[in-house]
Amino acid sequence: MDKKIHVSVIGASGYSGIELVNILLRHRNVTIDNLFAHSSAGKRFDEIAPAFRNRISLILDEFSIEKVAQSDLVFVALPSGEALTLVPQLRAAGKRVIDLSGDFRLKDTNLYKQYYKREHTAPETLSEAVFGLPEWFANKIRTAQFVSNPGCYPTSVILPLAPLVKEGILDPTSIIANSLSGVSGAGRSSLPEYSFCEVNDSVRAYKVGVHQHIPEIRTVLEQITGKSTPVIFIPHLLPITRGIYTTIHATLQKSVQISDIENAYAAYYSSAPFVRFSSTRIPELKHVVQTNFIDIGFSLLPDSHHIVLFAVIDNLIKGAAGQAVQNMNLMFQFPETEGLL
Amino acid sequence: MDKKIHVSVIGASGYSGIELVNILLRHRNVTIDNLFAHSSAGKRFDEIAPAFRNRISLILDEFSIEKVAQSDLVFVALPSGEALTLVPQLRAAGKRVIDLSGDFRLKDTNLYKQYYKREHTAPETLSEAVFGLPEWFANKIRTAQFVSNPGCYPTSVILPLAPLVKEGILDPTSIIANSLSGVSGAGRSSLPEYSFCEVNDSVRAYKVGVHQHIPEIRTVLEQITGKSTPVIFIPHLLPITRGIYTTIHATLQKSVQISDIENAYAAYYSSAPFVRFSSTRIPELKHVVQTNFIDIGFSLLPDSHHIVLFAVIDNLIKGAAGQAVQNMNLMFQFPETEGLL
Amino acid sequence: MDKKIHVSVIGASGYSGIELVNILLRHRNVTIDNLFAHSSAGKRFDEIAPAFRNRISLILDEFSIEKVAQSDLVFVALPSGEALTLVPQLRAAGKRVIDLSGDFRLKDTNLYKQYYKREHTAPETLSEAVFGLPEWFANKIRTAQFVSNPGCYPTSVILPLAPLVKEGILDPTSIIANSLSGVSGAGRSSLPEYSFCEVNDSVRAYKVGVHQHIPEIRTVLEQITGKSTPVIFIPHLLPITRGIYTTIHATLQKSVQISDIENAYAAYYSSAPFVRFSSTRIPELKHVVQTNFIDIGFSLLPDSHHIVLFAVIDNLIKGAAGQAVQNMNLMFQFPETEGLL
Amino acid sequence: MDKKIHVSVIGASGYSGIELVNILLRHRNVTIDNLFAHSSAGKRFDEIAPAFRNRISLILDEFSIEKVAQSDLVFVALPSGEALTLVPQLRAAGKRVIDLSGDFRLKDTNLYKQYYKREHTAPETLSEAVFGLPEWFANKIRTAQFVSNPGCYPTSVILPLAPLVKEGILDPTSIIANSLSGVSGAGRSSLPEYSFCEVNDSVRAYKVGVHQHIPEIRTVLEQITGKSTPVIFIPHLLPITRGIYTTIHATLQKSVQISDIENAYAAYYSSAPFVRFSSTRIPELKHVVQTNFIDIGFSLLPDSHHIVLFAVIDNLIKGAAGQAVQNMNLMFQFPETEGLL
Repeated sequence: MDKKIHVSVIGASGYSGIELVNILLRHRNVTIDNLFAHSSAGKRFDEIAPAFRNRISLILDEFSIEKVAQSDLVFVALPSGEALTLVPQLRAAGKRVIDLSGDFRLKDTNLYKQYYKREHTAPETLSEAVFGLPEWFANKIRTAQFVSNPGCYPTSVILPLAPLVKEGILDPTSIIANSLSGVSGAGRSSLPEYSFCEVNDSVRAYKVGVHQHIPEIRTVLEQITGKSTPVIFIPHLLPITRGIYTTIHATLQKSVQISDIENAYAAYYSSAPFVRFSSTRIPELKHVVQTNFIDIGFSLLPDSHHIVLFAVIDNLIKGAAGQAVQNMNLMFQFPETEGLL
Repeated sequence: MDKKIHVSVIGASGYSGIELVNILLRHRNVTIDNLFAHSSAGKRFDEIAPAFRNRISLILDEFSIEKVAQSDLVFVALPSGEALTLVPQLRAAGKRVIDLSGDFRLKDTNLYKQYYKREHTAPETLSEAVFGLPEWFANKIRTAQFVSNPGCYPTSVILPLAPLVKEGILDPTSIIANSLSGVSGAGRSSLPEYSFCEVNDSVRAYKVGVHQHIPEIRTVLEQITGKSTPVIFIPHLLPITRGIYTTIHATLQKSVQISDIENAYAAYYSSAPFVRFSSTRIPELKHVVQTNFIDIGFSLLPDSHHIVLFAVIDNLIKGAAGQAVQNMNLMFQFPETEGLL
Repeated sequence: MDKKIHVSVIGASGYSGIELVNILLRHRNVTIDNLFAHSSAGKRFDEIAPAFRNRISLILDEFSIEKVAQSDLVFVALPSGEALTLVPQLRAAGKRVIDLSGDFRLKDTNLYKQYYKREHTAPETLSEAVFGLPEWFANKIRTAQFVSNPGCYPTSVILPLAPLVKEGILDPTSIIANSLSGVSGAGRSSLPEYSFCEVNDSVRAYKVGVHQHIPEIRTVLEQITGKSTPVIFIPHLLPITRGIYTTIHATLQKSVQISDIENAYAAYYSSAPFVRFSSTRIPELKHVVQTNFIDIGFSLLPDSHHIVLFAVIDNLIKGAAGQAVQNMNLMFQFPETEGLL
Repeated sequence: MDKKIHVSVIGASGYSGIELVNILLRHRNVTIDNLFAHSSAGKRFDEIAPAFRNRISLILDEFSIEKVAQSDLVFVALPSGEALTLVPQLRAAGKRVIDLSGDFRLKDTNLYKQYYKREHTAPETLSEAVFGLPEWFANKIRTAQFVSNPGCYPTSVILPLAPLVKEGILDPTSIIANSLSGVSGAGRSSLPEYSFCEVNDSVRAYKVGVHQHIPEIRTVLEQITGKSTPVIFIPHLLPITRGIYTTIHATLQKSVQISDIENAYAAYYSSAPFVRFSSTRIPELKHVVQTNFIDIGFSLLPDSHHIVLFAVIDNLIKGAAGQAVQNMNLMFQFPETEGLL
């Protein structure tokens, strides 16, 4: 019989929280203890997420630390800023935690202040956070008490770049990433700029040069590769609900063949169950939507030293809830793909 | 040389107001005096509507009655409730007015209270309002001081029905109208239910049995045809920005041929420049988007006494700003199609 | 340990076929033997459906009867017309079959000829077909050798109507159904009318009075309720990929309360795992997309004898592949929801 | 009274051809003589483009050279390859021509062969072609007998780059352009890859390194600036109907302030009626859809020598039919904006 753990989700009414519940309900090794939400507390979960009727009857609860006493793991799916004060409480109570916010991804509190526009008030909790990118930090994640889940854009930028930077194939100072994201990346929003009429049939770049994922991309790539990687990153908003399409440009540091690139990816990802490398076949977003896969392809431009990488993910799954469950699977020695195929 | 009138628009920053400015800028007989908006007052119009850069340099102004002193006509494009207090001021100052809100469409103030959830505080202004449906009330509109512009749904329901009800072809008590609308019909909104992620890839009926356009449809049809027409009307929200698709069912009151239906429409609309009757060819929404046309088609079902009518409009043009300009053209003896083709 | 059956899918490269593979891969009691496709034979399944990379490595095969020798069940996901000649072969070989086409849904071969525009060449196979609507024919399905899976529109029309017609609440001669469908209902198409630019931002009714699902709706409702139900049905095409929104109008045959309607649905569907009745809460399409649920709601209009029913499904799941697996679950005594939650 | 010219359109049933008719119908100085189409010859134009009912009653005609005898100007809106043989006929007959295809944009016939995969069979006609980018070649266009209208992508790439390259602000060897295009850019297509279900909710890069607009971008930029500009260009397909969003990266060649960039654009475009430069305000696609404007903005990234340019156009207007009419306005001394505001 399958081993079971008990989990709770704080922030269950946001888009990432709902996706997390969706995955956890299909997971053979999980029992959901409690779902927490603030403004919807007291309502049934399936009232705020009617797609779940007949699948779950839990009532959203106001969080308090006693209510997670029975939980082996707590997912925090709150906006950045709110996790900052909550995670330390959970850690003080000895809980294992996976945090989906951006609050514990940057080890440098100065960078955090610069990009998140607030002081980091929990440096001790920060110091024990393990960055939850399973393809690179699986060993640390397996024993981690506290995992900080990666951002959606960084997942789509770091995974295609890391092998090529590490192998010295790319010039790490030449990298430019253009990302296109669906609107759910902005969370459940009532800002007029995310209303249907403002987004539909349009496209716009945003937060150019100031997006909070820029330092995450740079520092994690540097941590993995040992090289300075001042990636230029430009996000764009598309009229789709889910998904990220990332196109990355870089200069080759040496002359390479297609097979060299293929070998570099094989060396690092051949046993990674959610990385699908398609060589020179260009990925399409629709192939990863509703999945935990990242699809990666590339193109060597004719007569140049230029490589273009393409990577696609579902921002709510591999970019958030799915990757969080992948981390949970590692932390509790479940099969890495459980609940995710 | 073309005769010119001066006009002002109150509520120029909403979707209907912006569309109105778009049409008026192309109109050979119009000079725009002032554009009024409340929360955006002081900003350039093209700052809140950047699509208009290089086309207009006016600054949005806070409304006061003195500022329309030079205007021959004032358009009111405010939400229902706000027009209720403003239009009487304009009329007291002797201004000709076209009001795009729902505040002066229902002659019966009890119906207004029931469906709009407020008291009608301007019954005298109401009594002089002419319903601005040019295909049926052109003579009154030509001399009107105050025109109340029809609702978007009612335009799409009344125009296809009126000839057949009037001619006794349909049973007026059997009518069922299902309408599908783009999201711009809800105006510029920051409600979460109109956010991209909530609307995209979905459909929902709403305000079933209580939509404020129900009494407008019924009373105007009765006024035109002299018959009681208790139309059942169900609106639905679609993931498109603009347009209304209306499908109407009714029982035939007598045996008819296709040519009888064609003759009935020809009798009333053969000289109506914006009614395009396509007989048994089923209309498509895309053919009217960005135009002031209403396309009407029908189908006589085999082996039955049932007729289905189809009508499509752009809710912001024939359903709002375009029809308002069509009314202006009648009021000032301009060609009916000026600015609208 | 779970009992396992072996299945094959003929027509695995169409949208319904692909969806079927998606569900079967998650089903604990199924091993897929063979996937058949004609024009793609010889290619890997995940080449024509790259979303499945890392999930399945089967190669699409050209069908021959010997290749299903080991299969306990064969799904036929071919266009109507092609199943007509194939299913008899499978039955002659003694195979249990679930056919997703329209070829074996109409017991009256004259109706088939009228609506499908061809002769029915397999009346004997037709005579043994069980209509695969689990909520009404579960007992027959459990022992069936050959199940004809319902059409997508009929599923969305029959399920909400059957209890109310059977209970004598509705006038069965008054029923009008307006359905809105996503484009995947047309299958994988290269017709220009289904190109992105022709469909996007538009809506159109189609096949008015002649849609092949009309006789299916009428005859199955009559079979269930014992009453003549000459339903009027109008399909519309929407710019969405998946889903059907059906709005049904009918006249009440007697005075009813909300609770009467609730009781009627409870009497027939209280143990149906995929029917979610929401009483007077109006369903939204997004809540059923990617699921096997049908959501049903209703509205009693004020001051009238008119009821409006609303039903939503995912056309590829409850309207095709999901319902087929639900039928399989009944045929092989698996839990009815296995693979479908 | 306005001077009038007579024009004909060859290829009037494609998306660019239809858009051209739309603009020409609103143009005060134009009478349309003939609309030509091959497969739709004999049908009314408004039968294949029902949005034009009540606006035009012309019948599509099979082209022959005699039928343009009265035309002062002929627009050719045929696919590349077909214009190649037709334009020489028109020129031989002494007609002024604006060709919207790609057949006469590349002066180097070897490049044409490499990217268009066919021999260039009309080098003499090619030699007289003037590249129809009004912001840079107005003087030549005014007297041109034959104008080759620019491609949609090149318009969106060349216009933002030219001033900065010419002024030596950018390193011309560092330029990377990522473009996102709506589906109408592919023309009226029945390829399955452009069907609604394949495009909706997805994104994909395509023709990486081999797109036929690459040499057009490079050679025209070099012609304008006198510098070698080996632009890297990656097109992507988006689920929208109209519009191109282009994001361009380049390295600064010298230290600049925002005002330096502003001055560079002002120097070249201050009197260009369709270039809207918004400085550091990032453009949005929706502001140019249905217009002939190009909106250009930029961002100087903090702490780097990197500039990002953003440009948006409507691919069917500024990227095709609108720019063609702008060229016509220059050729016939009409106001440059006539028909286009």
